[in-house]
Amino acid sequence: MAGNTFGTLFTITSFGESHGCCIGGVIDGCPSNLRVDYDLIQQKIKERQTNSLPYTSSRHESDDVIFLSGISNKLTTGAPIAFYIKNQDIDSSHYEANKGVLKPSHADYTYVKKYGIYDYKGSGRASARETLVRVVAGCFAMMFLQSKAIKIKAYTTQIGSIVYPKPLTQILPDADINDLHCPDKEIYQSMLNELKSTRAQNDSIGGKVSCVIENTPVGLGEPVFDKLQADLAKAMLSINAAKGFEYGSGFQSAAMKGSIHNDLFTSEFRTKTNHSGGIQAGISNGENIYFSVAFKPLASIGQNQESVNIQGEKAIYKGGGRHDVCVIPRVVPVVEAMATLVLADHLLRFNAYKIH
Amino acid sequence: MAGNTFGTLFTITSFGESHGCCIGGVIDGCPSNLRVDYDLIQQKIKERQTNSLPYTSSRHESDDVIFLSGISNKLTTGAPIAFYIKNQDIDSSHYEANKGVLKPSHADYTYVKKYGIYDYKGSGRASARETLVRVVAGCFAMMFLQSKAIKIKAYTTQIGSIVYPKPLTQILPDADINDLHCPDKEIYQSMLNELKSTRAQNDSIGGKVSCVIENTPVGLGEPVFDKLQADLAKAMLSINAAKGFEYGSGFQSAAMKGSIHNDLFTSEFRTKTNHSGGIQAGISNGENIYFSVAFKPLASIGQNQESVNIQGEKAIYKGGGRHDVCVIPRVVPVVEAMATLVLADHLLRFNAYKIH
Amino acid sequence: MAGNTFGTLFTITSFGESHGCCIGGVIDGCPSNLRVDYDLIQQKIKERQTNSLPYTSSRHESDDVIFLSGISNKLTTGAPIAFYIKNQDIDSSHYEANKGVLKPSHADYTYVKKYGIYDYKGSGRASARETLVRVVAGCFAMMFLQSKAIKIKAYTTQIGSIVYPKPLTQILPDADINDLHCPDKEIYQSMLNELKSTRAQNDSIGGKVSCVIENTPVGLGEPVFDKLQADLAKAMLSINAAKGFEYGSGFQSAAMKGSIHNDLFTSEFRTKTNHSGGIQAGISNGENIYFSVAFKPLASIGQNQESVNIQGEKAIYKGGGRHDVCVIPRVVPVVEAMATLVLADHLLRFNAYKIH
Amino acid sequence: MAGNTFGTLFTITSFGESHGCCIGGVIDGCPSNLRVDYDLIQQKIKERQTNSLPYTSSRHESDDVIFLSGISNKLTTGAPIAFYIKNQDIDSSHYEANKGVLKPSHADYTYVKKYGIYDYKGSGRASARETLVRVVAGCFAMMFLQSKAIKIKAYTTQIGSIVYPKPLTQILPDADINDLHCPDKEIYQSMLNELKSTRAQNDSIGGKVSCVIENTPVGLGEPVFDKLQADLAKAMLSINAAKGFEYGSGFQSAAMKGSIHNDLFTSEFRTKTNHSGGIQAGISNGENIYFSVAFKPLASIGQNQESVNIQGEKAIYKGGGRHDVCVIPRVVPVVEAMATLVLADHLLRFNAYKIH
Repeated sequence: MAGNTFGTLFTITSFGESHGCCIGGVIDGCPSNLRVDYDLIQQKIKERQTNSLPYTSSRHESDDVIFLSGISNKLTTGAPIAFYIKNQDIDSSHYEANKGVLKPSHADYTYVKKYGIYDYKGSGRASARETLVRVVAGCFAMMFLQSKAIKIKAYTTQIGSIVYPKPLTQILPDADINDLHCPDKEIYQSMLNELKSTRAQNDSIGGKVSCVIENTPVGLGEPVFDKLQADLAKAMLSINAAKGFEYGSGFQSAAMKGSIHNDLFTSEFRTKTNHSGGIQAGISNGENIYFSVAFKPLASIGQNQESVNIQGEKAIYKGGGRHDVCVIPRVVPVVEAMATLVLADHLLRFNAYKIH
Repeated sequence: MAGNTFGTLFTITSFGESHGCCIGGVIDGCPSNLRVDYDLIQQKIKERQTNSLPYTSSRHESDDVIFLSGISNKLTTGAPIAFYIKNQDIDSSHYEANKGVLKPSHADYTYVKKYGIYDYKGSGRASARETLVRVVAGCFAMMFLQSKAIKIKAYTTQIGSIVYPKPLTQILPDADINDLHCPDKEIYQSMLNELKSTRAQNDSIGGKVSCVIENTPVGLGEPVFDKLQADLAKAMLSINAAKGFEYGSGFQSAAMKGSIHNDLFTSEFRTKTNHSGGIQAGISNGENIYFSVAFKPLASIGQNQESVNIQGEKAIYKGGGRHDVCVIPRVVPVVEAMATLVLADHLLRFNAYKIH
Repeated sequence: MAGNTFGTLFTITSFGESHGCCIGGVIDGCPSNLRVDYDLIQQKIKERQTNSLPYTSSRHESDDVIFLSGISNKLTTGAPIAFYIKNQDIDSSHYEANKGVLKPSHADYTYVKKYGIYDYKGSGRASARETLVRVVAGCFAMMFLQSKAIKIKAYTTQIGSIVYPKPLTQILPDADINDLHCPDKEIYQSMLNELKSTRAQNDSIGGKVSCVIENTPVGLGEPVFDKLQADLAKAMLSINAAKGFEYGSGFQSAAMKGSIHNDLFTSEFRTKTNHSGGIQAGISNGENIYFSVAFKPLASIGQNQESVNIQGEKAIYKGGGRHDVCVIPRVVPVVEAMATLVLADHLLRFNAYKIH
Repeated sequence: MAGNTFGTLFTITSFGESHGCCIGGVIDGCPSNLRVDYDLIQQKIKERQTNSLPYTSSRHESDDVIFLSGISNKLTTGAPIAFYIKNQDIDSSHYEANKGVLKPSHADYTYVKKYGIYDYKGSGRASARETLVRVVAGCFAMMFLQSKAIKIKAYTTQIGSIVYPKPLTQILPDADINDLHCPDKEIYQSMLNELKSTRAQNDSIGGKVSCVIENTPVGLGEPVFDKLQADLAKAMLSINAAKGFEYGSGFQSAAMKGSIHNDLFTSEFRTKTNHSGGIQAGISNGENIYFSVAFKPLASIGQNQESVNIQGEKAIYKGGGRHDVCVIPRVVPVVEAMATLVLADHLLRFNAYKIH
């Protein structure tokens, strides 16, 4: 495969550039006869959209999804579901101003070296706009998972220095959640302040998203290489700006003793603790799956930066343009979508071998 | 694919159980006419072997690799390279003693639920012994990478509370390295003490491995899903006991500002800093690639633990048997091997599209 | 994979239904910096189009290709190339007339059983219209192959009882070819008559297409399973109405002796004869590759036929609607396209392993 | 994938050279808890073995299968099943005599050009001995299919000029079958004579195998590319010496009219005729699946042949060595095995999407 298809049995093939006419995808392997939940699609798109909050890009897009195939009478047909979303509010002026100068910590250099084509008009294929395709595909995976009562929800657990301190191991009541997807009101205020002050500095800032999956049946995951956590890790690290992944006890486990870390069984095959993060030996064990993903500060900032041009000569990359201060909260539905795609794929693989 | 094959063009298919007759693998897609470096294979196997240090299992295995195909006159032929390593020192007495009782934080429960077969004689397919197959396969990938001057080296950077504090961003002189693969003499001593005291407590302990890759050509990685870091993350999380992965600035980046984090270009397309960890937009940028992997404390400890039997009734899982105190240092060559396999695979994919 | 993606490194993902809004595809793995030959695309589409000849469907479609991504300044960028073609002249009246009755020798029954959805409005996903996607994708593969001087051309060698009697082992001058792609003028006239008389009988008729590939480099094909002929066979049998595939001496070889069949080497590693059809042990040997594909008579005829309805009760399937008398000549560019896709894919795989 | 793995969910990875120490394979994705039918394995191996008939090679091999993994208490465990079979009776004298001279219509030239390695000791990886791996793997697929009552049987329907004249559309009583797998006693005698006279001429001869599959559930096959017949075609053309594939009405359909060819439905969704060969629109329709495979005369003959050496200079390839006169009947169980693997794979894929 050439890199733009994800999944084994439930697959999404992604296409489109941020500054082309559209982005889109083709979902293949979505089971037939699922009722298409258009409200879910609109809700998830909205969560990912540029909005009126002070910390997001001023680019406006309506992001209507145009479906081309695979749906009949609001039901999936089992055929490939193709869709696209137009790019409407394209303003290349900022990119024109930096034409020929490589953007630091961004795709310019590696793309021009790999593909032999210099695309100065925004990051093209490498833009975060591509993740919208994943969100739409994730909704179809979610329709499938919902038919099995599986639930997936992601939260903002860090923005810069503001950290939600507790491990997030279960889904919270919807009422507690705000437009930052932060699970705590006070921390939410601090995060808003962090975003505002970062914006005031013409800077960007990193963050962390944590995700919980409930009601996974026991048995998902295909050792030894396609362990459930391995496919989740790949899914998460394929998201723009992601820098790290941990599940269950994660990096903290490196400092722990086995006598503390081991999850003791209780009767009915449940465990007292859940350091394992719902996955044992690469296979879901029925406990909640939870994991976190770290995101770097976005490369686009409002400050001039030292750089070179495509000839390799010193040049200044000018700050400006319309950009988010932080990949969060817009990446929250993307994390959910990728987790959903992994779960749907593994649920189909699990079905395949359940022959008795 | 059914989960036991890794890679797209350079592939390893793994087989065997820890308490069966052998473990082994089939490498497919290894370029022909590579000289087989048997010394490298012996060295890497030795690094992974149970040895005389106080913190490793007392199980002794000679681990001679028997090659069945794909090599002629000490050269790879381009045909699949099949190999196996016999399991020689099998002592199931500990497992007999716990027959019918599920081992906490281990594969017993998920395997019996997934496959419908209860394998009480050690963890079978889920044993860390399986990783030896990866080490052997990684050596062939390394022979290929060495022909392109690419270097890969992993280090122990944490055992329990003892942490190597600096980011490891380049390969160190061999002379500085000890049998723990720790890059610092004093920290090495502290780590040894941590291992000894853990053993004295009949307990196990977690750790962290950091890996550096040098001389990677610009252009490896296939966005948007098969980004180089995504495939590295999958590779690492497919290793037994791995709980987290981060590359470049990793989880620290969540607290950083873009103005600090951005790697500014210098002339000749190099960067002043390397928070990107050698990968930009999913594609290698020619700087050193570096990443870390967290490992949990092993589930096997010398203490009795509360559990249930396979009927779901309360039971005691007895401590004992022969087990490592820590997955480190034996997992260090496994991390190297998986990184090597990812790089070799992506180098072949890179070659494929270099048509001009 | 879920069945709608073809290829390993050069891939096409197909979507769309004949009576939906459009059909389309996503090409992934097309090398960058190929000049897009829009004339070639138009020519090949035209060859496949419904036209004014007496033997083709009266459905009219302009078949303009709308490209959504992957092309910049008329060059491929290395990103996925998404495209679609609108369905414009949809007339469901014939299908309405047969609503609920299963069409004999067609997709109705197997699709409704497999996907649980009854799509009476034409064959939907199973329509020959889907093959237009392959033709467009094949043009991009062709642009790549042309950069290596590889040539592919298919011919009509049988329509019903009219058979082109000689093996077609090399590409003919363009001037000799007519709108049936038949390599002989007299046989062309007989074929036209066969088509006319079949139409007069409200019937359909089968045929055969033969294809030649010239200038293939030695070495394409990946034994033991992905032999070049194996992937060609799969490609051809994935075309609607295809019933058989043979290459080189084909089914005739079953009656031959080795002393006659063996292709003796001459100096310069060429062979005197080419019963091998340009492929030896699964790998191209530099001689011309040639093969034939048999196609059944199309299921759509102008006669009433006994059938059952979706409840399984006896019913009459009424003849009529707009249909081709024969899959030929419209399938000729489809055969070419699929051959081109296989060659492009194997050329990339060949490149991957050419490391020295 | 690198060419030596077949299948999507039920996979076989093949390894080994005919003149190396062994051949073998790894089956991955075989469902767990299947009882291993060792008698079936022995029977199928025996059918493929060199034996005492006058038309087969005098090479003797006991062909005991050594299983390395994936089986416990005579049950499949769901883990990869690795196995190998030793090569015992290696006599390279014939190959020594022709060292440096390219064997006509054989693998020598393409292998040396592709892999850069000249393996004069028999055809190595390209030997028909490799197909034994497929036979063993096919037995495990068969154990799975038998649990669903699916039956697969192949027959010899042509040797040279002797042709079994009727289409073979159903499985015959076992009693009627002889050591040539020919379904007719008189034709069997003629075939034996054809083989004897060919041997007397120091020549080889081609043939045809026909295969029938009964009790396939409706719904197997994944359009539009992984149609059931497409995967069968690939499977068959991946067998050494195969030159053509046709299913149902096959090449005959090219001369037929739709009014004759269409399979009319009767009540209960069965069809009066079965020109479709049990597959409609790429999906099994519940009728018997039947297909034929043409095989060329083997390249190895007892006569001297004009050739060139590896420098490209004229040379004589000397006749001799131990070889079969015809690939039939030994290829009959190989055809069965490959069909079985395709069916098992598609049955698992079918299971995957059966979610309601």
